[in-house]
Amino acid sequence: MRFGIIGAGRIGKIHASNVAARKDCEVRLIADADRSAAQSLAEATGGRVAEIDAILASNEIDAVAICAPTDMHADLIEKAARAKKAIFCEKPVDLDANRVRACLEVVAATGAILMVGFNRRFDPNFASLQQRIRDGAIGAVEIVQITSRDPSPPPVSYISRSGGLFRDMMIHDFDMARFLLGEEPVAVSAMGSALVDKAIGEAGDVDTAVVILETKSGKVAQISNSRRATYGYDQRIEAHGSKGMLRADNIRETSVEFAGAQGFASDKVLNFFLERYAAAYRDELDAFVKAASAGVAPRPNGEDGLRANLLADAANLSWRTKQRVALG
Amino acid sequence: MRFGIIGAGRIGKIHASNVAARKDCEVRLIADADRSAAQSLAEATGGRVAEIDAILASNEIDAVAICAPTDMHADLIEKAARAKKAIFCEKPVDLDANRVRACLEVVAATGAILMVGFNRRFDPNFASLQQRIRDGAIGAVEIVQITSRDPSPPPVSYISRSGGLFRDMMIHDFDMARFLLGEEPVAVSAMGSALVDKAIGEAGDVDTAVVILETKSGKVAQISNSRRATYGYDQRIEAHGSKGMLRADNIRETSVEFAGAQGFASDKVLNFFLERYAAAYRDELDAFVKAASAGVAPRPNGEDGLRANLLADAANLSWRTKQRVALG
Amino acid sequence: MRFGIIGAGRIGKIHASNVAARKDCEVRLIADADRSAAQSLAEATGGRVAEIDAILASNEIDAVAICAPTDMHADLIEKAARAKKAIFCEKPVDLDANRVRACLEVVAATGAILMVGFNRRFDPNFASLQQRIRDGAIGAVEIVQITSRDPSPPPVSYISRSGGLFRDMMIHDFDMARFLLGEEPVAVSAMGSALVDKAIGEAGDVDTAVVILETKSGKVAQISNSRRATYGYDQRIEAHGSKGMLRADNIRETSVEFAGAQGFASDKVLNFFLERYAAAYRDELDAFVKAASAGVAPRPNGEDGLRANLLADAANLSWRTKQRVALG
Amino acid sequence: MRFGIIGAGRIGKIHASNVAARKDCEVRLIADADRSAAQSLAEATGGRVAEIDAILASNEIDAVAICAPTDMHADLIEKAARAKKAIFCEKPVDLDANRVRACLEVVAATGAILMVGFNRRFDPNFASLQQRIRDGAIGAVEIVQITSRDPSPPPVSYISRSGGLFRDMMIHDFDMARFLLGEEPVAVSAMGSALVDKAIGEAGDVDTAVVILETKSGKVAQISNSRRATYGYDQRIEAHGSKGMLRADNIRETSVEFAGAQGFASDKVLNFFLERYAAAYRDELDAFVKAASAGVAPRPNGEDGLRANLLADAANLSWRTKQRVALG
Repeated sequence: MRFGIIGAGRIGKIHASNVAARKDCEVRLIADADRSAAQSLAEATGGRVAEIDAILASNEIDAVAICAPTDMHADLIEKAARAKKAIFCEKPVDLDANRVRACLEVVAATGAILMVGFNRRFDPNFASLQQRIRDGAIGAVEIVQITSRDPSPPPVSYISRSGGLFRDMMIHDFDMARFLLGEEPVAVSAMGSALVDKAIGEAGDVDTAVVILETKSGKVAQISNSRRATYGYDQRIEAHGSKGMLRADNIRETSVEFAGAQGFASDKVLNFFLERYAAAYRDELDAFVKAASAGVAPRPNGEDGLRANLLADAANLSWRTKQRVALG
Repeated sequence: MRFGIIGAGRIGKIHASNVAARKDCEVRLIADADRSAAQSLAEATGGRVAEIDAILASNEIDAVAICAPTDMHADLIEKAARAKKAIFCEKPVDLDANRVRACLEVVAATGAILMVGFNRRFDPNFASLQQRIRDGAIGAVEIVQITSRDPSPPPVSYISRSGGLFRDMMIHDFDMARFLLGEEPVAVSAMGSALVDKAIGEAGDVDTAVVILETKSGKVAQISNSRRATYGYDQRIEAHGSKGMLRADNIRETSVEFAGAQGFASDKVLNFFLERYAAAYRDELDAFVKAASAGVAPRPNGEDGLRANLLADAANLSWRTKQRVALG
Repeated sequence: MRFGIIGAGRIGKIHASNVAARKDCEVRLIADADRSAAQSLAEATGGRVAEIDAILASNEIDAVAICAPTDMHADLIEKAARAKKAIFCEKPVDLDANRVRACLEVVAATGAILMVGFNRRFDPNFASLQQRIRDGAIGAVEIVQITSRDPSPPPVSYISRSGGLFRDMMIHDFDMARFLLGEEPVAVSAMGSALVDKAIGEAGDVDTAVVILETKSGKVAQISNSRRATYGYDQRIEAHGSKGMLRADNIRETSVEFAGAQGFASDKVLNFFLERYAAAYRDELDAFVKAASAGVAPRPNGEDGLRANLLADAANLSWRTKQRVALG
Repeated sequence: MRFGIIGAGRIGKIHASNVAARKDCEVRLIADADRSAAQSLAEATGGRVAEIDAILASNEIDAVAICAPTDMHADLIEKAARAKKAIFCEKPVDLDANRVRACLEVVAATGAILMVGFNRRFDPNFASLQQRIRDGAIGAVEIVQITSRDPSPPPVSYISRSGGLFRDMMIHDFDMARFLLGEEPVAVSAMGSALVDKAIGEAGDVDTAVVILETKSGKVAQISNSRRATYGYDQRIEAHGSKGMLRADNIRETSVEFAGAQGFASDKVLNFFLERYAAAYRDELDAFVKAASAGVAPRPNGEDGLRANLLADAANLSWRTKQRVALG
C-alpha cells in the first residue's frame, strides 16, 4: 500500500515511520506547509515531497494519512474520499459536530474507507482488556473508570485553539468509554476547574475535569482528567462487571525497584504519548492497512469520531451550565 | 474508663471486645433487646447485662458505646449527654438531618463528648494517606477518587429500612471525601441504577452509583459504589494533587502469588469490613478513649456526622431528579 | 489448658499474652530469674509468680511454655516431660545435637507432647504457600529460595553466645527448607563472611551467608541471610516446581503508595519479627493447644528441631572448611 | 558503518534487522551455509549474499557480526581481526578456554575491536540496575541473586552439543554476576540435577542448577537456573548492599489484571529471549557501533567472554566432583 502523508509534524512522523517500517507499505509522497519538515521526513522514510493536491491526484497513492491541523481534516477527508483514496485521519474529524456530519455524508456517498485515529483502542493493554470484556470475562459491564493525566500542561497558546479540554484531551476517554461500555451514553454530567494553571482558566478552559456518562440500561463511566501529573503520563482504565473487574495499569520506565531506609522506590511511568503509545500507533496502522486492503470498513470509523465529538460537546455544555445534559 | 455497651449485635461485639482488650478500659454493662445476645457478650467481655436506662443512670459507667439500631441513636445520644457520659455512637446519628441537628444542639448544650463512628478514618492505610496530605506530600489536593464495593448485596429486607445506598453505604465515602479534600463540597451530582439485583430497584433503591462532589475552589471527588464485587471487599482511595498522587490499595488475604501456565494469580482482597477494618475499629476506640480521657472533643464529631448526612441527602436528590444539587 | 510460662523476656511475653487472649487457656504461673519481669508479666496476663520447680510440680499446670535461655531448654524439657506436662519449647532444643538427641530420648520414653517453636511455619502466608505445595499446585518441588535478612545486627555480645549465624538465625530457614522441600537434605554447601560488622568477624562469626541444600532426588534449596537490611525485616520464600512457582512476599507497613517527580514510593516492610510474625505466634500456639488437647503429636516436633540443628552444624562446618558437607 | 553478517539463523536475523533499522548503518553482505536463509535475510535487510571469505576480504565492510555456530567463532574472530574489521561476536568465543585465550592473543596483536554478545547487560532494566549500583545507590554490594529459567527445555539433540547447562545457559548469569559484583569471583560451588527431562540427565547434562560464587572480599552471588518455567521466561536479578537493595523484575505480556471470585490474575511473563531482550539487542548493537566508530574498546570484551567461560568450567567441575572449586 502506497501512502501519501499529509502533515509532517510530530504525529505525521509517527505514522510515516510506521508505514516505512512495514514490508507491505511504503511512503511515497509527503506534504507539509513547512517544506523543510516535509523534506526531512521524506529523507527519513524514502518518500518525496509533494503538494497536497498532487498527493490526492496521484495514481501512485493508495491511501492518505491526514496529520494536518484539525481545521483542515474535514476538507481533506472529503477530497480524499472523492479521489478514491483509503483515508486514515487523526482525531478529531472536526471540532464542529455539524461539519463532521456533513463530511461523513460525503464519505458515505463515495464509499470511501475512513478510519479515525483513536490510537488508544490499539494499545496492547487496553485492547486486551476490551477483548476480555467481549469474551465475557467480567460478565455485564457496570462501571468503567478512566484516568488520564498529562505530565504537564501545554502552552496557553495551544489551549486557546484546542477546542478546550473536553474536545482536545478527554475526547480520547469518551471514545474509550464507548469502546468499553458497549452501549451509547445517554447523559453527561461534567465538572471542571483550572487548578494547574490560572492562565488556562483565563483563556476560558479547564485543566482538571471529571465526567459521568450514563447509558440507558444504567451502566456508568467515570472519567478523570488533569493536565498535570508529576509522575509521568498517567493512563489507566478499569472496568467492573457482574463477574469481576479488569484493569490496565501504567507502564513504568523500567522494572527496577530500590529498597532502602525510606522504603521502596520504583520508576515514573512512561513520560508521554510517543513512548506510552508507540505500540498502539503501530497496531493502529496495521488495523487500517488490513481493513483497507480487504476493502472492509475499519473501526474506529467516522461515526465513532462523531460520537466522541458529541460527548465532548455535551460535557462542555454540562460544565458551562452546571447541569446534566441528556443526549439526543 | 468503664463502658456501657448499648446493642450486642455484630458491631456491638466489635466495640465490646476492643474495650475488653484494653488495659485502661473495661466493659461493665451491656444492654440489648435480645437478652441472650447481651448475656453472651457479657460473658465474653466480663460485663453484666443491664437495661439501657440502668446503664445511663449508673455511676459506674463513664462512657457509652451506642450500637443500637439507627432509629434509636439520636434519642440515646441525648439521654447519654444529659447523663454526662462520654458518647461513642455508630454512624449515622439519624437518617433525618433535622433530627441530627436537634440532637447536636442537646450535645452542645450539655457539653458532652460525642464521637461518630466513621471507622475508615482510622484504617492505618487511609489514616497514613490523609496524614501525608496534611504534611504536604502532594501539595494542593485536586482530585480524590474513592472506590467502595461490597462483596455481595444485603437482603432486600435490609435495603428497605436502610435509608438507601447513599445514606447507608456511600455515607462512609462522603465522610472520607471530606476528610481528604480538606474543604467542604458545595455541589453534588449523582447517578445510580439497580444492576446487581432488580429487587433492590423495585424497592426504590440503587446498588450501583457514582457521585461527583465539587468544592468552592474547584477541587473534586469521584465516588464509585457497587453492592457487589466478586473478588472481595474493594476499598481503595486515591488523591491527586499539585505535587503528586497518593493511593491506598486493598489488602489481600495472603501475600502468596502463584505463577503457572495461565499466568500469575494472587489472593482475593479481605472479605468484608470485620476483617478489613479490624485495626480501624481498634484505633477508632483508642482515639475516643484518649479524647474522652483528656476531655477534648474527638473527631469525627457530630458535625462530621451531619455533613455526611447532608451530602447523602443531596446525592439522593440528585439521583432522583437527575440534576446537580447545590449545597446550602 | 492451664499454662506455666518459664521465662518472662521478649518471647515469653508474646506467648503469655497469646495464652491469656484465648478463651480455652489461661496463664497460671510465671517464672523468671528476674522476679520483677515475672511479676510484671503476671499482672498483665492474670497469672502468679512462681519458681520453676513449683511450676513443674504443680497440679494446676497442664502445659509449659519454655522461653528461658537456650542452655536451659534441654533440662527443662526433660523435667517437664517427667512431670507429664505438655511442652512448648522455643527453638533450639540445644545448640549441641548430641544433647538434643539425649533430650528427645527422655521425651520419647515419657511419651510427652513436645512442640518446638519454629514459628514461621505458622505465618499465614508461608503456611498457605506450603499447603498449596502439598495440594499439588506446583507439581514436584525443584528449587526453594529463602531470603531472610534482619533489619540490623545484634550486639557482638549477643553474637558470641548465639552459636553463630547458622545455628542462631539460619536455623529458621533450615526448618523452612525442610518444610517446603518435603525431602531431607543430604548435603550442604555454605559460604559466609562478615561484611556488615567487622566485630562480628573478629568474634568468629559471619553476618552474611548463603547456603545450598541438596536432597537425594536432586531437589535444591538456596538460602540467603544478612544481618542487615535497610528497608526492614526481609522475609521471602519462593518454591519452583514442575507445574509452576509459588512465592510469598514481604508485608509493607501500609498499602499507601506515593507517586511524584522521583517516581513511586511505598513503605518499608514490617520492621521485625514481633510485627511480622504476630499472627504466626498466635497460630503456633493454637496448633500446640489443639494437638496437646487431642493428645496427638504436634509439628514441628523434637525431631524437626534436631534436623534443623544438624543442618546448621553442617553449614557451619562447610563454611569453616570451605567444603561441601554430606549428611549422615 | 557497513556490516557483514555471518550466520543468518535466529540470532543473525536479530542483529541484521537491528543494523538495517539504523540510519548510520547498513547491511551489505550476508553469509550462511544455508544459502536460501542468507538470501531471505538479504532481501529483508537490503544486503547481498556472499561467501564468508568474500565478506572478510571486502573493502565495503567495516564490521562483522559473527552469528555462526559456536565452533566457528574463534576462527572467524581471528580472520576478521587480521582483516581489520570491527568484530561483534555472539557468546561464547569458544567452549574451550584455551582456544579463547589463543584467539584473544590474536585480537590483541591486531588491535582489533571485539565485543562479545552478552546481551543482558544491555537490557534497559538490568542496565539501569547496574548503573545505580555504580552510582552508589546501595553502597557496597554484598549479595547478588540471579534467577534465570527458560520456558521449556531444548531438544536433547541440542543439549548434547551445547557444552552443558553451565557453559550454554548459565554463562549469561556468570557474566551478569561479574557485571554486578564489581569484583572477580575466586571460588565456585555448583549443584545440578536433571529434574525436568530425564533424557537430559542421560545425555550427561543437568536442567536444574544452582551456584554460589564468592569474591575475595567476601561478596557472594547466588545463581538459580531451570530449563523450564510454566509461566514464561523468568529473568530476575537482585542486588543487596550496605545501603539497600535493587531488583529488576520480569516483564508481563500486558499490564491487564483480572479480579474475580478466584482472586487476582495477571499475564505470564514475556515468552522468550526474542521478546524479552528485544531492546537489549538494539542497545547492544548501539554500544558496539558507538565504540567501533570512536575506535575505543567496547564492553563486554574478549576478556569478559573468557572470564565467563572460566566460571562455567569451574561450575561444571564443581558439579561433577561435588566440591568447591577455587579459581586461578
